[in-house]
Amino acid sequence: MCAKMHRRKRVWHKVRRRTPPGTVPGTIHVDPSAPRPTIEVLAYDKERIVEERIENLDRLETLLGQWPVLWVNVVGLGDAATIARLGKIFGLHPLALEDVVNVHQRAKLEEYRDHLFLVARRVGLAERLETEQFSIFLGKNFVVVFQERPGDCFDPVRQRIRMDRGIVRAQGPDYLAYALLDAVIDSYFPVLEEYSEQMELLDEAVADHKPAETVGRIHELRTELLGLRRAIWPHRELVNALVRDPHPLVCDATRVYLRDCFDHTVQIIDMVETYREMCADLTDYAMMTAGNRLNEIMKVLTIIATIFIPLSFIVGLYGMNFRPESSPWNMPELQWYWGYPYALGLMAAVAAGLLAYFWHKGWIGASLRGTGGGRDRGE
Amino acid sequence: MCAKMHRRKRVWHKVRRRTPPGTVPGTIHVDPSAPRPTIEVLAYDKERIVEERIENLDRLETLLGQWPVLWVNVVGLGDAATIARLGKIFGLHPLALEDVVNVHQRAKLEEYRDHLFLVARRVGLAERLETEQFSIFLGKNFVVVFQERPGDCFDPVRQRIRMDRGIVRAQGPDYLAYALLDAVIDSYFPVLEEYSEQMELLDEAVADHKPAETVGRIHELRTELLGLRRAIWPHRELVNALVRDPHPLVCDATRVYLRDCFDHTVQIIDMVETYREMCADLTDYAMMTAGNRLNEIMKVLTIIATIFIPLSFIVGLYGMNFRPESSPWNMPELQWYWGYPYALGLMAAVAAGLLAYFWHKGWIGASLRGTGGGRDRGE
Amino acid sequence: MCAKMHRRKRVWHKVRRRTPPGTVPGTIHVDPSAPRPTIEVLAYDKERIVEERIENLDRLETLLGQWPVLWVNVVGLGDAATIARLGKIFGLHPLALEDVVNVHQRAKLEEYRDHLFLVARRVGLAERLETEQFSIFLGKNFVVVFQERPGDCFDPVRQRIRMDRGIVRAQGPDYLAYALLDAVIDSYFPVLEEYSEQMELLDEAVADHKPAETVGRIHELRTELLGLRRAIWPHRELVNALVRDPHPLVCDATRVYLRDCFDHTVQIIDMVETYREMCADLTDYAMMTAGNRLNEIMKVLTIIATIFIPLSFIVGLYGMNFRPESSPWNMPELQWYWGYPYALGLMAAVAAGLLAYFWHKGWIGASLRGTGGGRDRGE
Amino acid sequence: MCAKMHRRKRVWHKVRRRTPPGTVPGTIHVDPSAPRPTIEVLAYDKERIVEERIENLDRLETLLGQWPVLWVNVVGLGDAATIARLGKIFGLHPLALEDVVNVHQRAKLEEYRDHLFLVARRVGLAERLETEQFSIFLGKNFVVVFQERPGDCFDPVRQRIRMDRGIVRAQGPDYLAYALLDAVIDSYFPVLEEYSEQMELLDEAVADHKPAETVGRIHELRTELLGLRRAIWPHRELVNALVRDPHPLVCDATRVYLRDCFDHTVQIIDMVETYREMCADLTDYAMMTAGNRLNEIMKVLTIIATIFIPLSFIVGLYGMNFRPESSPWNMPELQWYWGYPYALGLMAAVAAGLLAYFWHKGWIGASLRGTGGGRDRGE
Amino acid sequence: MCAKMHRRKRVWHKVRRRTPPGTVPGTIHVDPSAPRPTIEVLAYDKERIVEERIENLDRLETLLGQWPVLWVNVVGLGDAATIARLGKIFGLHPLALEDVVNVHQRAKLEEYRDHLFLVARRVGLAERLETEQFSIFLGKNFVVVFQERPGDCFDPVRQRIRMDRGIVRAQGPDYLAYALLDAVIDSYFPVLEEYSEQMELLDEAVADHKPAETVGRIHELRTELLGLRRAIWPHRELVNALVRDPHPLVCDATRVYLRDCFDHTVQIIDMVETYREMCADLTDYAMMTAGNRLNEIMKVLTIIATIFIPLSFIVGLYGMNFRPESSPWNMPELQWYWGYPYALGLMAAVAAGLLAYFWHKGWIGASLRGTGGGRDRGE
Repeated sequence: MCAKMHRRKRVWHKVRRRTPPGTVPGTIHVDPSAPRPTIEVLAYDKERIVEERIENLDRLETLLGQWPVLWVNVVGLGDAATIARLGKIFGLHPLALEDVVNVHQRAKLEEYRDHLFLVARRVGLAERLETEQFSIFLGKNFVVVFQERPGDCFDPVRQRIRMDRGIVRAQGPDYLAYALLDAVIDSYFPVLEEYSEQMELLDEAVADHKPAETVGRIHELRTELLGLRRAIWPHRELVNALVRDPHPLVCDATRVYLRDCFDHTVQIIDMVETYREMCADLTDYAMMTAGNRLNEIMKVLTIIATIFIPLSFIVGLYGMNFRPESSPWNMPELQWYWGYPYALGLMAAVAAGLLAYFWHKGWIGASLRGTGGGRDRGE
Repeated sequence: MCAKMHRRKRVWHKVRRRTPPGTVPGTIHVDPSAPRPTIEVLAYDKERIVEERIENLDRLETLLGQWPVLWVNVVGLGDAATIARLGKIFGLHPLALEDVVNVHQRAKLEEYRDHLFLVARRVGLAERLETEQFSIFLGKNFVVVFQERPGDCFDPVRQRIRMDRGIVRAQGPDYLAYALLDAVIDSYFPVLEEYSEQMELLDEAVADHKPAETVGRIHELRTELLGLRRAIWPHRELVNALVRDPHPLVCDATRVYLRDCFDHTVQIIDMVETYREMCADLTDYAMMTAGNRLNEIMKVLTIIATIFIPLSFIVGLYGMNFRPESSPWNMPELQWYWGYPYALGLMAAVAAGLLAYFWHKGWIGASLRGTGGGRDRGE
Repeated sequence: MCAKMHRRKRVWHKVRRRTPPGTVPGTIHVDPSAPRPTIEVLAYDKERIVEERIENLDRLETLLGQWPVLWVNVVGLGDAATIARLGKIFGLHPLALEDVVNVHQRAKLEEYRDHLFLVARRVGLAERLETEQFSIFLGKNFVVVFQERPGDCFDPVRQRIRMDRGIVRAQGPDYLAYALLDAVIDSYFPVLEEYSEQMELLDEAVADHKPAETVGRIHELRTELLGLRRAIWPHRELVNALVRDPHPLVCDATRVYLRDCFDHTVQIIDMVETYREMCADLTDYAMMTAGNRLNEIMKVLTIIATIFIPLSFIVGLYGMNFRPESSPWNMPELQWYWGYPYALGLMAAVAAGLLAYFWHKGWIGASLRGTGGGRDRGE
Repeated sequence: MCAKMHRRKRVWHKVRRRTPPGTVPGTIHVDPSAPRPTIEVLAYDKERIVEERIENLDRLETLLGQWPVLWVNVVGLGDAATIARLGKIFGLHPLALEDVVNVHQRAKLEEYRDHLFLVARRVGLAERLETEQFSIFLGKNFVVVFQERPGDCFDPVRQRIRMDRGIVRAQGPDYLAYALLDAVIDSYFPVLEEYSEQMELLDEAVADHKPAETVGRIHELRTELLGLRRAIWPHRELVNALVRDPHPLVCDATRVYLRDCFDHTVQIIDMVETYREMCADLTDYAMMTAGNRLNEIMKVLTIIATIFIPLSFIVGLYGMNFRPESSPWNMPELQWYWGYPYALGLMAAVAAGLLAYFWHKGWIGASLRGTGGGRDRGE
Repeated sequence: MCAKMHRRKRVWHKVRRRTPPGTVPGTIHVDPSAPRPTIEVLAYDKERIVEERIENLDRLETLLGQWPVLWVNVVGLGDAATIARLGKIFGLHPLALEDVVNVHQRAKLEEYRDHLFLVARRVGLAERLETEQFSIFLGKNFVVVFQERPGDCFDPVRQRIRMDRGIVRAQGPDYLAYALLDAVIDSYFPVLEEYSEQMELLDEAVADHKPAETVGRIHELRTELLGLRRAIWPHRELVNALVRDPHPLVCDATRVYLRDCFDHTVQIIDMVETYREMCADLTDYAMMTAGNRLNEIMKVLTIIATIFIPLSFIVGLYGMNFRPESSPWNMPELQWYWGYPYALGLMAAVAAGLLAYFWHKGWIGASLRGTGGGRDRGE
């Protein structure tokens, strides 16, 4: 299980550039193991809506220009030719297309002559924390979205378009791009809620004197929050640039909504930073609690050992050879009929009593089972 | 008790967005468990004042426009229809209304075409540290305040209006908004005073060699101060924007007062940051004190053990079988009449003496009761 | 003594706002325990000088306007009426007067229509570190200074005026305000020198292997330096604003001197920050030194114990019952005349030797007296 | 091996200025041990390309001006005269030439009247982490590159020029300079990948309870990442200045590519900072894991020792001299035929059992072999 | 030796203002123990050069104005009258002269009407780290330098002037001021090289398991680097202001050289910061290594003690009174002729073996000599 947990980080923090150093810039270097692209189109205006799956890219050329908003959703980045063809149809810049297949970009906004290129990063806690790069091209009458894998967070947006809820059908592609970006950024909230839950559990675990069990998980949480921070931070700049810098493709009405989206981004960053600090505090707390436990154990050892050491010395000093002849008070036990069994029983009782005490304190069991964590059964 | 303490953080740091991801922006998603709104109105000018509880919202439309300042106080956010209706009456923006019911906003200022939207956050130390979001709309002739729960910090302001103390009756709604904001920000001072009190006690507790008992509380304090910082920081920007940016709804006279309010905000931030650093120092201090205690205990153990170990060796070496026959000096105790009781008594005396010494040092008692803290009874 | 030390912080970091939350802004809320104000006046021009103690405030109205520089020094803030009256005479803003009696302001500069309001904070190491707020009003022909307690740092300035040393008599009130501000800021240097002295002693104490004794004092120093930093930082902004922003009340010649004053402020901040970092380093150093001591003690214990444990085992194994009958080499001591006294003496010698060794290492004494600190008597 | 590892840092962080303090600025002070320069030329336009090794510098004067792009690659900085001559031919500033041979420059951009001077720093993980300074002069129709050692990262660029891949042949020297800079910056990615790999292994090693073995390597990694950060940071400013500030030698088309290069730089910095923080987290983690191990060991000692200490006391108390005469139950073992061998065998069995247990826990072996690391063989 | 080391800091971080608080600003308060000033003059133009020692200050008035560059070098600040007289001759501002004798200024640039005032700080590692303030006045045709002690870092500059090397003779006083400033800043490089050397040795010492011996030195290094940072940082602003802000006294040609000087300053700051972080890393490393040693020692103790404790118990249990009568196997040693000497010899052998083992591990020796450091003789 431990191994699987660390597999997690392998995916998270490692950056493997697809393009080997020195390649011609603008080359589309697809990952051969990536799924082949499937393309879905959703075109709409106030009255009409059409939704279809594209097999032949020529169909796109027909659609383009006929609708005020044409949303092309490309799932899977496994075929360079298709991506290059899409780039040609919508006039996308080669450097941007290179970034589309290099799925380790930081979130960013790039302005090209007649389209905007947005990179955003969704997070999710499936079996493990994973991120997915969304490359969004916003043109005068189209939005092209590239995503790595099937399964996205856009279904609510699709529903709003289909059901004509909200104002999305009345707005241009900039509003659609906003809605998609907002959906991506909203994907951070459930992850943060999950982390908040876990942090609370860890906090309680430390307070319950189980620091050892939490150490590994706190460390993992810190690493994952570091990754989350790395993922969310650049969105701030991205959304802020959209809000602040006037651009012909983004109208003022949409800008008000983007301001709301900016608020969310700032809130997420704020939470991630707070959680990072809480994790640091938690580490200190766990260290101090562990230190206190050691302190306590040392004290018990000190007390028991230092009391018995002088006693044993005295016992040894006299060899306990008091002459029974000299007095009836001198070690009568030695002549009892059950003397030896009595002594063995006394020792067994003391040993059992101590074991029970240690068990009650939570020191045994764990230590015998080879983990460092103790369990305090006493309240 | 431990459990209750951690419940605290559950409320504090967790952010649960009311609105599910992907909802149409501007939707008012009320928390079904929130109290239903009750609405109070206080309208005044220099001469007259009227104060009433509104049951029918139509009454508000009548009042609006008849008074230079109309203060509408909405307590409880449990009914979407009422809030939407209020939004319509006063022309409030849907995105702002969405934030009103999403009570986890950061403090912020948003300018809409004909009203300002302020979000502020009150803190309080009732049974536990809690915060409450105040959403304040400032229009040309009204101030609408939404609060989560009954019981606020505005009574002094109400009294000033009723009694015509200060200049509030002579000023417009901007001054009222300032007075409310100032009251919210002033709510941080008592909390900080309480923390300062606690920090002092903790400091003394550490200095009195009770680090273990303070560890948990220091950790909690750090977490709470982190929350306090998160709550107060955005107010700085909010108040600063009000002071700095000219806005037709805020007159220059009020701006002077807002500058005072800004001073308070900066002072609170300054104190929170200082307390955070003091907590960090305190953690170090507690760790070092705990380390020193361990050091001291180890030393006592070392000394007692290392003195007796060679003695016991010598005792064992000779088996203490000195022949009484060879000399009257050789172990006469063994032949005493009270020899064995004497030896037992000697051991009991030594054990009692050591126990008394450890008790005096504060090592026993605590350790037997299962906590890691000691108590130094010696001065 | 410990208690007294912590009283120190009580005063330092706690902020108790005089004004209860929600009071009408501009209310003068005096501390009933503050001393009642006494007022001294020093008026001068190039030729003449007059110095008197004011009992009747009407006298001030007479003086005001007759002299190019009228310095009114108000000591003690215990009477609201007097302060309000002074405010009326010199046209001081009510919000500023509120800050005068609220003696926990951060240093700041506030511009009002016809006067500047400066708040500065003097520090001193009387019995303990204490600060005092100086509120300085600079008008066209007057400087009004409010201070909390009798005894200030302005005597050198008074002497310079009386003796006509330097250029102070030839300059306007702005130069006087500079001279007072400079005197307040200079009060930080002796405190820093004292701290530097203490830090050096602590450093030596840690290097002499007495980490335990220094822990508490280092912690106090950190807390006090935190307070010092909190006190001095805002002066930077205050003096910088005076240097940078042109203001009709401050002439260019004075500005050159203020630049010098700014230099001092920066130098103090620089030193405080450096001392803070040195304290942090010192804490690390003390922790490592303490850790090394523990290490060393553990080693001695290990060595003595692990050597004697197998020996004792062997001794026990044979019970040392070697038959004297079998050989004259077998335990002849047991039959010596002085055998038992010899064994007792041997043990006493070993115990005394070990105690002497531990005393020499500085482990005993301290530990028996209940403090964690040791003393290394060996060089 | 340890020694070799630390040799690493000797090269990395030490800065030895070639020029002794006080030398005339602009003096070319070559390192006598540096390889003597070899010069290669690659000149091209859209149609033609020429590549040759220059022996006589006069040849360069002939070539200069005949080609739109003349790339002069100087490998080895061991001859001041050659470098000075090159400076004269291309009109390079003496201060820049001084920096060329002082190979400890931070990456920077300097504008001179008719050429730009770029310093970049390549990293590589040959036997150890090493850096190499590349000094790039960009003129109207030439690019002169000085490098310290044979072997660079420019082969892909050469191939692109030779094969006429991409747009390099159609562009001016500014595009060539971009391509070279991009190749240098790309050299950081493989190093970071290697570090990411190592960090993952270290993380697993700590989780597998081998903190001691990782301590040294984590420390080395932190030091190397510090060096990496120092190397990459100034590139940010360098590339940003190229992107942002208009300069006649850099055309707008190239600027788009430089923006891409800036993205890479930011991404590398981001990763280095993230890795630094991960290392800090890892250190904490290792410390806590080590502390927990100690905790666990102490507990086992406590339990075994404190159970046996009272038992041994009881054993000593009675001297186990129970009279066999009094009862058949009293120590019959003492009269067994195999009594002594039985006792020895019992002890051997206990000792072997404990040794096996400690071996299983991973405490033995390592400790006997003189390293501090343990190995937990139990899952 | 320890004492001397700490003397070091006494000089370094303590700031003792010469001028008592409240003195008239501009007063020259010389340190009575400072050496009396000696004045040397070096005047030159392109053709001629004159170098002489001035005894009578009137000579300076004669020289001033006759040469394009007059370099007056004042060594020793022990006479207020001389300094005041120099101030009058060259028209230097009193506030600047006050700073000249107050040798604890931060590096700074001050513009006066017709001269610039530069304060720079040289560092050196004579017997200990020491700094020296250089106050440089740059006028239209003079450079006046005040230094604290004989012996400076200007000899290479003097040589360049005398030998007419470089362009210094052809340039005005601004170039001379640059050359002097550059020489002062270059004085940091040898110190940093020395520190780099020491840090490497400390790193190796920690890796060789001698953390205890390094603790004190690491701490000193951190303190000294803190001082170095404090000394160098303000130079950044100083040189940057010279490069950036146009000033009639500094010509554009010199500005190019100052840019080079700025580069050096940034490089030094960069190194100091890096070294500070390396020291912090080193502290962590030493703490972890020390912790691992403790861990290891504890393990050995645990293993030896816990193995022998049960054995001793068994030994005690049977009292080893196996009856030789019952069997020839029962403790035949007791009846050997050499039984007792054999037992003593066995014990001596075990004790010697353990001592040898501990010596081999490096635990003995150091601990007996009273230092906490061990030495691992095993590879």
